[in-house]
Amino acid sequence: MTIQPILIDGRWRPADAEDTFQAENPATCQPFPDRYPVSRWSDCEAALAAAEAAFREMRTMSGDRIASFLETFATEIEQRSEALVQMAHQETGLPESPRLANVELPRTTNQLRQAAVAAAEGSWAMPTIDTSAGIRACFEPLGPVCVFGPNNFPFAFGSISGGDFAAAIAAGNPVIAKANPSHPGTTLLFAQAADQARKASGLPSGTLALLYRTSHADGQRLVADPRTGATGYTGSRTAGLKLKAAADAAGKPIYLELSSVNPVVILPGAIRERADSLADEFTTSCLMGAGQFCTNPGLVAMLAGEATEAFIRSLCDRFAAAPVGTLLSRGVQSGLSASIRTLTEAGARVLVGGSEGGGSGYSFGNTLLRVDGQPFLDAAATMQTEAFGNASLLVVAEDLDQLCHVLDCLEGNLTGCIYSDTAGSDDAVYPRVAAALRPRVGRLLNDKMPTGVAVSPAMNHGGPYPATGHPGFTAVGIPASLRRFAMLASYDNVRPDRLPACLQDRNPNGTMWRCIDGCWTQHDVS
Amino acid sequence: MTIQPILIDGRWRPADAEDTFQAENPATCQPFPDRYPVSRWSDCEAALAAAEAAFREMRTMSGDRIASFLETFATEIEQRSEALVQMAHQETGLPESPRLANVELPRTTNQLRQAAVAAAEGSWAMPTIDTSAGIRACFEPLGPVCVFGPNNFPFAFGSISGGDFAAAIAAGNPVIAKANPSHPGTTLLFAQAADQARKASGLPSGTLALLYRTSHADGQRLVADPRTGATGYTGSRTAGLKLKAAADAAGKPIYLELSSVNPVVILPGAIRERADSLADEFTTSCLMGAGQFCTNPGLVAMLAGEATEAFIRSLCDRFAAAPVGTLLSRGVQSGLSASIRTLTEAGARVLVGGSEGGGSGYSFGNTLLRVDGQPFLDAAATMQTEAFGNASLLVVAEDLDQLCHVLDCLEGNLTGCIYSDTAGSDDAVYPRVAAALRPRVGRLLNDKMPTGVAVSPAMNHGGPYPATGHPGFTAVGIPASLRRFAMLASYDNVRPDRLPACLQDRNPNGTMWRCIDGCWTQHDVS
Repeated sequence: MTIQPILIDGRWRPADAEDTFQAENPATCQPFPDRYPVSRWSDCEAALAAAEAAFREMRTMSGDRIASFLETFATEIEQRSEALVQMAHQETGLPESPRLANVELPRTTNQLRQAAVAAAEGSWAMPTIDTSAGIRACFEPLGPVCVFGPNNFPFAFGSISGGDFAAAIAAGNPVIAKANPSHPGTTLLFAQAADQARKASGLPSGTLALLYRTSHADGQRLVADPRTGATGYTGSRTAGLKLKAAADAAGKPIYLELSSVNPVVILPGAIRERADSLADEFTTSCLMGAGQFCTNPGLVAMLAGEATEAFIRSLCDRFAAAPVGTLLSRGVQSGLSASIRTLTEAGARVLVGGSEGGGSGYSFGNTLLRVDGQPFLDAAATMQTEAFGNASLLVVAEDLDQLCHVLDCLEGNLTGCIYSDTAGSDDAVYPRVAAALRPRVGRLLNDKMPTGVAVSPAMNHGGPYPATGHPGFTAVGIPASLRRFAMLASYDNVRPDRLPACLQDRNPNGTMWRCIDGCWTQHDVS
Repeated sequence: MTIQPILIDGRWRPADAEDTFQAENPATCQPFPDRYPVSRWSDCEAALAAAEAAFREMRTMSGDRIASFLETFATEIEQRSEALVQMAHQETGLPESPRLANVELPRTTNQLRQAAVAAAEGSWAMPTIDTSAGIRACFEPLGPVCVFGPNNFPFAFGSISGGDFAAAIAAGNPVIAKANPSHPGTTLLFAQAADQARKASGLPSGTLALLYRTSHADGQRLVADPRTGATGYTGSRTAGLKLKAAADAAGKPIYLELSSVNPVVILPGAIRERADSLADEFTTSCLMGAGQFCTNPGLVAMLAGEATEAFIRSLCDRFAAAPVGTLLSRGVQSGLSASIRTLTEAGARVLVGGSEGGGSGYSFGNTLLRVDGQPFLDAAATMQTEAFGNASLLVVAEDLDQLCHVLDCLEGNLTGCIYSDTAGSDDAVYPRVAAALRPRVGRLLNDKMPTGVAVSPAMNHGGPYPATGHPGFTAVGIPASLRRFAMLASYDNVRPDRLPACLQDRNPNGTMWRCIDGCWTQHDVS
């Protein structure tokens, strides 16, 4: 029995463990032989002390050095891609190909390289220069960032490889990564690659730390520690809200991605026009990766009618015929069961699926539930219970008024989609539907399922509470995601040679965008 | 006895009052005859309902309409300047001239006009267009904003006239203003002017609401209400943290300005070079407005030595000789007394002042306290107790190491200043001092006192907790302050004619800055 080491201050060493745990292969329900430590506070303390020391050094470091680390890390990942894909497949049940090898891994390295470009280029910091007042400002890193990664994207949202990690590092902060306990081996491989890249690019030893698990109390202490700059968390609402409460009480920024049912409104014209392709599109989006996406379309709102009934029947056929995927863990299976039970107890009816099993290992039948508009409204909060997995709730409203009431009752979500016909027959109602949906979602889509989350500067992978903890920030998209892990730093009458490079008269690299006296420019101060 | 009306949904009407209160003239300690209502929840409810309805309308409104309101409001204020100055002088004890009439009033109207320009121009929303991915994003208003104004700037930070108000409206949100109970009459005059301007510019009736007071419980309920978009609060740490807890638990953004001692480091070369002018500068900054500034220099750190002792003696002379100002209220006087007591009990020694009285009405002797480095470090948290008013704590460190330890112990502050000589003798130590101070303050100054807070795009009137609730935002400075009251809204594959004007291919006004495919430009999408 091996107990895997943790990474603290550039050293792989045994944890001060209060316990150990094993991950499970969700496709076989068998535990892996390796054991991973549950750290005591002393490990967190050591990680914080090392990160604090590293941060002092990183504050004076050029963006190029940080960019070089991110670039090297991406290459290190590519060199280990086979091992990473194999390990992640075993730990998560996600298909090796195309999902892990051809989609998520390239996305992850691409994201790291975009972050490298942002770190080197520096526009993310929004340097702002007011020459007449003698005041200059930019965003600056704010200190060690704790990253709690989710179970569903072992690469692209991994705590030492994913979006939060890339953003926190690119903004100039050390990272204390807390592995998701469902894929500790994958996280360990990433940490080894990151450690290698850190050494090669000469970043301080405390830049990176990897812990696998702590007690809940220590997790809360970690995000609230005076040395912590901020926290990025993606995971369950229950665990996230406990961390939020601890961080909030200490005045520490915490960015959370908690839950979302991602409402999809399909207007009647769209069903009339292209029911078959819509059914395919929805089925693919909802069942991809066994539905374990933050942006899975978990709630579909439609207007009652014959065409809608036929559409629903065709969805049921597709759900029944589609293979049942393996879920990420026993916990996901039991969580999905519990959510479906909650929804049915509140009045939703199972159309297809609804029970455990049907696939290899942990699995749950592809599930569609249905509820009419009024019973939805009667239990609106419960009806928005996230059923994380291959399930969706169809809400059939009797008319447009009721449909809009349903939308008015929605909590904050990451995404909201509106499908309408291309000939214009839905155009009259679109504005009303969009007006109801827009303020409740971070990203509004037309004629497109929400599951693709492009790493675009215009992406918002965020949204009003409880989708996230603050509606002004996105977890995906560069450069905006970097600014979560930064503080606004103003320099008033500071002597020119004492200003950070990005605020001096000379544009440090000729490519950085700066706002000088109200104009965005890549030029020097004239 | 008149009970003043509240403003709800465009109507001046009696409050549903559970009690009434009177404001006091702090210079005479006599209450004014007018009574103001303490509202029950039903008034908050009515304000929220009206604001929610107004918001629906405002979401479709052009920035020009909002700009026209802000412009008209500035003019209405100027037309009532005499009444405003007189009322504020009576309610706050602040001098009519130059402070209220010649400094704060022009600053307030200037700020409203800058906000109008920002609303009309639209760059504040950072429209971001990714043509290849078909995704576009911008900041959009997020709903009714509750503004709790402070006691110390009845105009420039007033709840229906000041920076938070201007920013929230310019970003497109209705405002529910909660008057500061020490100057309700001034706030009422502003609300009348704002109401007039609202009618003239055709904004919806629910755009503005004015309440004077509520119970603490109702205040907490207000900031956490589902209809509330966000809250801006400037005031005491105790009251602010209660609102923060309520807003945080509901996932509602809240921007707070809580307290700050605004450390000033005076390096030895600066004292050698210009002790007299420094003493004048510090005395003026610390005693201006009886020291009742968020950015009052409340902690001065110096190195021990003969020159420092002589400098301290000259400060004491100036503090003893300076006239004693009137404090804003009985509460400020008793708060200042309590803070001085806390500091002396922790080991600080009173050099001058230290007791109530000495001026007209509520007042407190101009006060300097002193503590050496080690006793400061022994009680570092207590030694940072904000003494809001005409008082400052001088910390004399025995050497540079100890000085930096003192800085390392500082909580988050709005500002930090470093004075050094112009000949270069302090240059060797500057980097170390700046490195310690920089991450702890929102604005770093050189050779300048912190009390001037220019309305500049590069200003940061913010800082790490507990100066504010989030280190990424500023309460002063346009356009950045607007983005506090906004959500990130992404549009993915949304049909061109359904996009908001700022995200369509054509630049709506030719002056809006947008980031198109990574380049900031005022051009159309090509």
